[in-house]
Amino acid sequence: MTAAISLTTVVGNPKRLSRTLTTAEALAAAIGSELRAEPRAASIDLAELYLDGIEPPHDGFEHAATQVHTANVLIVGTPVYKASYTGLLKLFLDQLAPRALEGVLAVPVTIAASAEHRFLADLQLRPVLAELGASLPVPSLALRESELPALPEHIGAWTEAHAPALEAALGLGRKPVGAAA
Amino acid sequence: MTAAISLTTVVGNPKRLSRTLTTAEALAAAIGSELRAEPRAASIDLAELYLDGIEPPHDGFEHAATQVHTANVLIVGTPVYKASYTGLLKLFLDQLAPRALEGVLAVPVTIAASAEHRFLADLQLRPVLAELGASLPVPSLALRESELPALPEHIGAWTEAHAPALEAALGLGRKPVGAAA
Amino acid sequence: MTAAISLTTVVGNPKRLSRTLTTAEALAAAIGSELRAEPRAASIDLAELYLDGIEPPHDGFEHAATQVHTANVLIVGTPVYKASYTGLLKLFLDQLAPRALEGVLAVPVTIAASAEHRFLADLQLRPVLAELGASLPVPSLALRESELPALPEHIGAWTEAHAPALEAALGLGRKPVGAAA
Amino acid sequence: MTAAISLTTVVGNPKRLSRTLTTAEALAAAIGSELRAEPRAASIDLAELYLDGIEPPHDGFEHAATQVHTANVLIVGTPVYKASYTGLLKLFLDQLAPRALEGVLAVPVTIAASAEHRFLADLQLRPVLAELGASLPVPSLALRESELPALPEHIGAWTEAHAPALEAALGLGRKPVGAAA
Repeated sequence: MTAAISLTTVVGNPKRLSRTLTTAEALAAAIGSELRAEPRAASIDLAELYLDGIEPPHDGFEHAATQVHTANVLIVGTPVYKASYTGLLKLFLDQLAPRALEGVLAVPVTIAASAEHRFLADLQLRPVLAELGASLPVPSLALRESELPALPEHIGAWTEAHAPALEAALGLGRKPVGAAA
Repeated sequence: MTAAISLTTVVGNPKRLSRTLTTAEALAAAIGSELRAEPRAASIDLAELYLDGIEPPHDGFEHAATQVHTANVLIVGTPVYKASYTGLLKLFLDQLAPRALEGVLAVPVTIAASAEHRFLADLQLRPVLAELGASLPVPSLALRESELPALPEHIGAWTEAHAPALEAALGLGRKPVGAAA
Repeated sequence: MTAAISLTTVVGNPKRLSRTLTTAEALAAAIGSELRAEPRAASIDLAELYLDGIEPPHDGFEHAATQVHTANVLIVGTPVYKASYTGLLKLFLDQLAPRALEGVLAVPVTIAASAEHRFLADLQLRPVLAELGASLPVPSLALRESELPALPEHIGAWTEAHAPALEAALGLGRKPVGAAA
Repeated sequence: MTAAISLTTVVGNPKRLSRTLTTAEALAAAIGSELRAEPRAASIDLAELYLDGIEPPHDGFEHAATQVHTANVLIVGTPVYKASYTGLLKLFLDQLAPRALEGVLAVPVTIAASAEHRFLADLQLRPVLAELGASLPVPSLALRESELPALPEHIGAWTEAHAPALEAALGLGRKPVGAAA
């Protein structure tokens, strides 16, 4: 493969420049370097996007929505809040068109404060992304905060295990980069 | 019982003055008239609350948070969006303190466009409310949009079936109206 | 209250005489001694019930089904297997009539080997019990295996927190002991 | 591709020779004819397997477990019972070794009596299969009973939409047919 791959990261941590954002971007970078294609990366920090209100700020929102629905791979990051994904992330997903993620390979990244909450955001998020039409061919990267100091190892293990399946899924019906879904 | 009962409605439909709001308020009114107590009603339309941004607008947010965590009965309304509760509702719940709903009896009200989505928001919402410490002693009112013309009948049936259990749950450890949790 | 309370325990651990069984029975005993009523206890070990096959063994199954649907309080015990309740427990629930738990107060007891699985069986079980018509007025007792040595403390804390809500729920529409639902 | 593909169907309907079984087998056949490989099909009717009891009947169970964990594609069929997958299916999954489905592509097939229950078994089943290590690269075939008369159309539409993703996922790390996971 020599075509470009569009890799978009969208993160729903209400704090700007959060560890969720840097973690999701690190996974995106690792996936990009693993795929035999030139990655084109974009990153959306929803805490920035919604700074001025919940109404879709037309230019900013439309730009973000286009980056999301034209992505080949979409890294979706959220901390675990109140036993689920954040409202900020869902607010953005709610404003997307029905089936906006058709043809997008989605990879959730969740970060939990406690072991007991580790899988809860992921359990609630995958059905929502599937409802939007996303393909979810690989397991999520579900981390605990206490694992963040060893982030490179966790990302390395995840990438080794799952990049081949992402690559295979990308090989079929690749959308031209930049085209709307 | 002759004490006052604090009945708060909080609705996470991004459209102001939504049918979700009027439905949740109608259920609150029906519960209030059924309980042998003087109801004190408050209603929070999150589309209003977050009009100017997602940062808790201090006065408005603090007032809403107090109404929610001092409620005896909290009616929590949401349409079913993308197979779950709305991000707007979760955004508000995320900003509450941990265990902010301890001692609150929560009653979800969900409205779905299709039969197949009827129970999905409720399935995701109840664990979130439980994580916040809420008691969920009765089933949710999970409606389809097509049932809204017969709303009084649906509310009547729900109230007849479940008001006694709410009344019983209220009888114990009633928080003084106005006290913080 | 001086009436008798029917307290039934049903446990879906495939191993007979499991720790899940003794834990669920211990919770049933603690609830029974807390309620101001004479408890009548019954205990169903599904590993015994299905020893000879999955077809409802008519006498044994019918007896168990009657104990379950005439219970005032039903303690439902399961270990966490493969991130959920056990198939053995669900097999029994599947064979009950629709809405067989109408009027029954159900209290799940789950035991997980790891912290990360602690809440997973409970998340899947509560909607199933609700579908059967059960009331679930109080949180589940969701334990880890490592907490079993301190079981009396955990049961004591749970009972102190939640027995009043069970008592209140029992006070209304109590079914006569022994009557079919 | 010219290698053989091992396609196994496992169905957890307590009734032998159920419509769930014939539906799952029809999907397996459609997938088999779509893939550019020689399919080797096996079908496990759990109502048969557990006819004589829940203890793994050693020869029968071991044979079925081997067919399942050496499958390239595993069609997992269940009716929707009490708002979830059947206990019979979960009983079998519980008896598999941890991570027994590592390297297996699983495709759930669920059949619901009502529209409102259409997605419920699938919601509960996918996390269980993921816990067992299965890959779930494509959406489930979630049908209603009323759609069964048009089964060929539904299977045709599903296969057209999702066989390419299955094919792509099969292309990587294909396990030799007959090898243990």
